[in-house]
Amino acid sequence: MKIGLVGLGKMGRNLALNMHDNKFDVVVYNRNSEKTKEFIEKGIEGAFTYKELIDKLDDKRKIVWIMVPSGHAVDTVISQIKPFLRKGDLVIDGGNSKYTDTIKRGKMLKTDGIHYMDVGTSGGTNGARNGACMMIGGEKSDYEELKTMFEAVCVTDGQMYLGKNGSGHFVKMIHNGVEYGMMQAIAEGFEILEASDFELDNYDVSKVWSNGSIIESYLMSTANKAFSKNKKLEGIVDEIDSSGEGLWTVEEALKLKLPSYVITASLMKRFESKQNERFSNKVVAALRNEFGGHKIYKK
Amino acid sequence: MKIGLVGLGKMGRNLALNMHDNKFDVVVYNRNSEKTKEFIEKGIEGAFTYKELIDKLDDKRKIVWIMVPSGHAVDTVISQIKPFLRKGDLVIDGGNSKYTDTIKRGKMLKTDGIHYMDVGTSGGTNGARNGACMMIGGEKSDYEELKTMFEAVCVTDGQMYLGKNGSGHFVKMIHNGVEYGMMQAIAEGFEILEASDFELDNYDVSKVWSNGSIIESYLMSTANKAFSKNKKLEGIVDEIDSSGEGLWTVEEALKLKLPSYVITASLMKRFESKQNERFSNKVVAALRNEFGGHKIYKK
Ligand SMILES: NC(=O)c1ccc[n+]([C@@H]2O[C@H](COP(=O)([O-])OP(=O)(O)OC[C@H]3O[C@@H](n4cnc5c(N)ncnc54)[C@H](OP(=O)(O)O)[C@@H]3O)[C@@H](O)[C@H]2O)c1
Ligand SMILES: NC(=O)c1ccc[n+]([C@@H]2O[C@H](COP(=O)([O-])OP(=O)(O)OC[C@H]3O[C@@H](n4cnc5c(N)ncnc54)[C@H](OP(=O)(O)O)[C@@H]3O)[C@@H](O)[C@H]2O)c1
Repeated sequence: MKIGLVGLGKMGRNLALNMHDNKFDVVVYNRNSEKTKEFIEKGIEGAFTYKELIDKLDDKRKIVWIMVPSGHAVDTVISQIKPFLRKGDLVIDGGNSKYTDTIKRGKMLKTDGIHYMDVGTSGGTNGARNGACMMIGGEKSDYEELKTMFEAVCVTDGQMYLGKNGSGHFVKMIHNGVEYGMMQAIAEGFEILEASDFELDNYDVSKVWSNGSIIESYLMSTANKAFSKNKKLEGIVDEIDSSGEGLWTVEEALKLKLPSYVITASLMKRFESKQNERFSNKVVAALRNEFGGHKIYKK
Repeated sequence: MKIGLVGLGKMGRNLALNMHDNKFDVVVYNRNSEKTKEFIEKGIEGAFTYKELIDKLDDKRKIVWIMVPSGHAVDTVISQIKPFLRKGDLVIDGGNSKYTDTIKRGKMLKTDGIHYMDVGTSGGTNGARNGACMMIGGEKSDYEELKTMFEAVCVTDGQMYLGKNGSGHFVKMIHNGVEYGMMQAIAEGFEILEASDFELDNYDVSKVWSNGSIIESYLMSTANKAFSKNKKLEGIVDEIDSSGEGLWTVEEALKLKLPSYVITASLMKRFESKQNERFSNKVVAALRNEFGGHKIYKK
């Protein structure tokens, strides 16, 4: 089995090295050729065009693993590799694509007999390098063919076939929604600790919580790691980006009319963190002032 | 070192066995004497009155570990053992007491020169039996004296001295607040999965999420254990009790004027789960009906 890996970003490069370490043949391609050159220097096969990439794959079946940002980039890559693919070949999207896009792409490729697989990948860059967690959707037979590879690049029991196209990305999306909520719960806990009169050490607390407690988790250990470097998180701006999956999870909850308070609140906190001024606060302040003469703060 | 353990409930019995296994002398007392008898049959020293319990402890320093429900029960036990204690003795509260109560009790005992220590215990009954997580407040010298015992009954790095009286219970309280939020986030994720069109298996999903993912956690493994027994949680009523710590965490957030959305929402969900009818829903339905003639459902 030989895999053509497109996208040597934070995740793709680690995954390529992981596959290589596990004795799976991998040919890498990156839009910016510098990264491809680095890999060739490491002794990993590289390609500088999509044609070259696909030529270098097994004749019997071409397998291309795409590891680029969700949305437009995935469509671009698919449209650029498609001319070189034949019936029966397999395209894998290992990024965080929206599951509805995945279903559409799968259908579109199917009209040419090209198989599609969605692999939601968790475990961050360290996981990609040393043992990931993969949520897999697509045809069962494709999964069976690649199973030894999934087992090799993931931790034990850290890969699972979940069903038809879209299942993998759907479950990864919900995973990220849960992640938002868990992170926010942890964050609120530390915010209270930090504001309290007790002189608590965030490093100590996150350490004891990481060993034998009910809230022991990868995320708590990660908090402990962050606090080990910077107990008061000095110099870090209190702003949080989001890359889509939390929003999509909430959209899904809305579609299903489910009251997902915690995941929704976590997403809103992120949006709020990006606001320069909160207009809603101005509105409430103005209303209080109008009806009660209550103080408003002026610039 | 010999410990007098009061309360052979779910936690106390496991902790007593844990101490015993680790070669720490323990004398147990339980209000209902049946449990004490069971322990004596196991070859563990027991006592049937508080006087007998304290008589059986080291003459040099009496150390009593209380493991009973928070609130009234703790005060009752303290008032009943106090007549037999002398200056320099040590009382430990290993339950989930409210930290403000702990501070008061510590001050009260201090007037008689009795030392007090608060040990917030996490890890559930299995932790108490096989390796717990303990958040410890009190005098540093008392901690130092008992350190080998804490190390023995906890997992590695799973015990931490956090500062003066109340610190242990304060940190345990916040721990439980975080636990509420994390559980709610996980629960909302599975609710969306369960309602979706994908035919997902809660056992499979919780399994892959428990291995190498970012949301890998004790709680996710626990979810996996629950789903392994009952994939659809059939027969379980959708009602959640709460034992105080979540409420106290939110009260603390309010006191500190902190916007702890997720922990608060998790607590509110528990309260809501205990309502037979939600009057607020009736109010909204009635208002919609009044101003817009919108449908109301009648009994
Ligand atoms: N980072 C994480 O912790 C993590 C975890 C799980 C999943 N993911 C998902 O994995 C995917 C990749 O993430 P990442 O963190 O590796 O991103 P990244 O570090 O930003 O790397 C993006 C890669 O995609 C390539 N790329 C971007 N647009 C392209 C296009 N139009 N055509 C061809 N290549 C293009 C980039 O090439 P150039 O070098 O030429 O720019 C680069 O190699 C995303 O879907 C992400 O959500 C990330
Ligand atoms: N269960 C957990 O997972 C867990 C985890 C961490 C912390 N905790 C905390 O640990 C403490 C004990 O919890 P648990 O789960 O072991 O409770 P439990 O199973 O309900 O046992 C309560 C114990 O306290 C005794 N007790 C109750 N009222 C008493 C009184 N007035 N005087 C003397 N003894 C009295 C009971 O004696 P009888 O047998 O005579 O009724 C019993 O031995 C609580 O503060 C709890 O919040 C529990």
